[in-house]
Amino acid sequence: MSDTKVYLLDGGSLVIDGFHAFWNRGPGGELRFPCYAVLIEHEDGRYIFDTGYDYDHVQRVLPFEKPIQSKEQTIPGQLAKIGLRTDDINYVINSHYHFDHCGGNKHLNKACTICHTKELEACGCHQPFEHLGYSDLTFAPEIARKAGKPLPPDPVLDMYTPTFQTLTGDQEIAKGLWLFETPGHTAGHYSLMVELKNRRPMLFTADACYSQKNMDMMCISSFHLDPVASLKSMQRLKELAEKHDAELFYSHDPESFTGYQKDAAYYS
Amino acid sequence: MSDTKVYLLDGGSLVIDGFHAFWNRGPGGELRFPCYAVLIEHEDGRYIFDTGYDYDHVQRVLPFEKPIQSKEQTIPGQLAKIGLRTDDINYVINSHYHFDHCGGNKHLNKACTICHTKELEACGCHQPFEHLGYSDLTFAPEIARKAGKPLPPDPVLDMYTPTFQTLTGDQEIAKGLWLFETPGHTAGHYSLMVELKNRRPMLFTADACYSQKNMDMMCISSFHLDPVASLKSMQRLKELAEKHDAELFYSHDPESFTGYQKDAAYYS
Repeated sequence: MSDTKVYLLDGGSLVIDGFHAFWNRGPGGELRFPCYAVLIEHEDGRYIFDTGYDYDHVQRVLPFEKPIQSKEQTIPGQLAKIGLRTDDINYVINSHYHFDHCGGNKHLNKACTICHTKELEACGCHQPFEHLGYSDLTFAPEIARKAGKPLPPDPVLDMYTPTFQTLTGDQEIAKGLWLFETPGHTAGHYSLMVELKNRRPMLFTADACYSQKNMDMMCISSFHLDPVASLKSMQRLKELAEKHDAELFYSHDPESFTGYQKDAAYYS
Repeated sequence: MSDTKVYLLDGGSLVIDGFHAFWNRGPGGELRFPCYAVLIEHEDGRYIFDTGYDYDHVQRVLPFEKPIQSKEQTIPGQLAKIGLRTDDINYVINSHYHFDHCGGNKHLNKACTICHTKELEACGCHQPFEHLGYSDLTFAPEIARKAGKPLPPDPVLDMYTPTFQTLTGDQEIAKGLWLFETPGHTAGHYSLMVELKNRRPMLFTADACYSQKNMDMMCISSFHLDPVASLKSMQRLKELAEKHDAELFYSHDPESFTGYQKDAAYYS
């Protein structure tokens, strides 16, 4: 039985406007930010928390987000660096189903997918203003078909029937692996805390808080289903970090990301 | 008993970013838009629906909205053009209490102020992200004091105790004068429909819909308490206009505003 290890898998970058990153504050202008996945090697199996975006999808549906992603910055590319194949992954956890957090799910088709019950429901019947967020449903072809969403032509997707495990409430899904409800950005958003032997717990905010600057300003992003809930979730993350002496890892923070360990380096 | 007349009182203009006007759509960049009040001469008395912004307040608290307002574009200035004084106004109706809709209330201190119950509550205990919206509480000095909000030094405000009539639900407050609940932009937002003898009813959206372009795109503004409710309210306005064969008058529409009758001209 080995200690839990955490790898950050670089997934390239995207561009949004400053008014997207900092709701009604800005300033406006292009802001390039990183996307990444989290690989957790746990005694119960290998988990991946979020899977970044799919380059072709963004180029087709949201080219104005100007994706920059090398082959190495895909899920298969990042796993190869650690000597793993996509079939080695046992569980995918999705914080939520925006395209830049589930674009790599389709590569992990042996894994069981874990998410919040409300989030899976939202994929098929979201608000009109969430249309672009939920535009990449390749991770769940059946839902995409039922919702009348286009799927890219791909014989693999025709065969692919993912297994889901849906949850509600806070959950310790494996020893030291905690999911905390942080809704607002979307209907069923989860943040993840990983307890490790040799360091402080890592608390992955996902899109409940894009960056340290959002947290410092208590300013949510412009993409949200419920701004009041979003703000409460950000406050909750702050309190959880304090309570557990955890380090916050933000989802889209250009500054913080440069200081994170990447590639084959890991936290343990 | 004379027919109801409607005057539009030009209140100058402000600037916001395109990402404010069209939530998550943009494009970004400065957008200058008009603010105006609506004067209704009714057999029951003189009503003013919304009162625009106070130039000094905006310069002090939100100078980045670059106010342009002449002396003629204040409430006293606009009333003078029609041969009225501020004391001639019997009722102020506020769609909501954002600074650009209640800045002129303080001039109308003989009037009874009508608003949604939830909106008056929101003034004293709104969400943090609504701070700038609810920044001008000179219309209700007591609420401002209780909420710890600064008031400009003004001996008149010290004396001023406005009377309020708060409502909930849709209401015909006088014959042919309808208030329709359109929440989302704020907690207790009202739109106003005025039935006239010689033309289609006028349906003033207030900030439930800034402009024709917002309506065409079904795109709400970035300033909102609840985006889902906002969208429903916009849909509701569309249906009300259809049902009553009413003409929609938008709150901040640079294009539509040029076609509206202003100054001493009136609708009847």
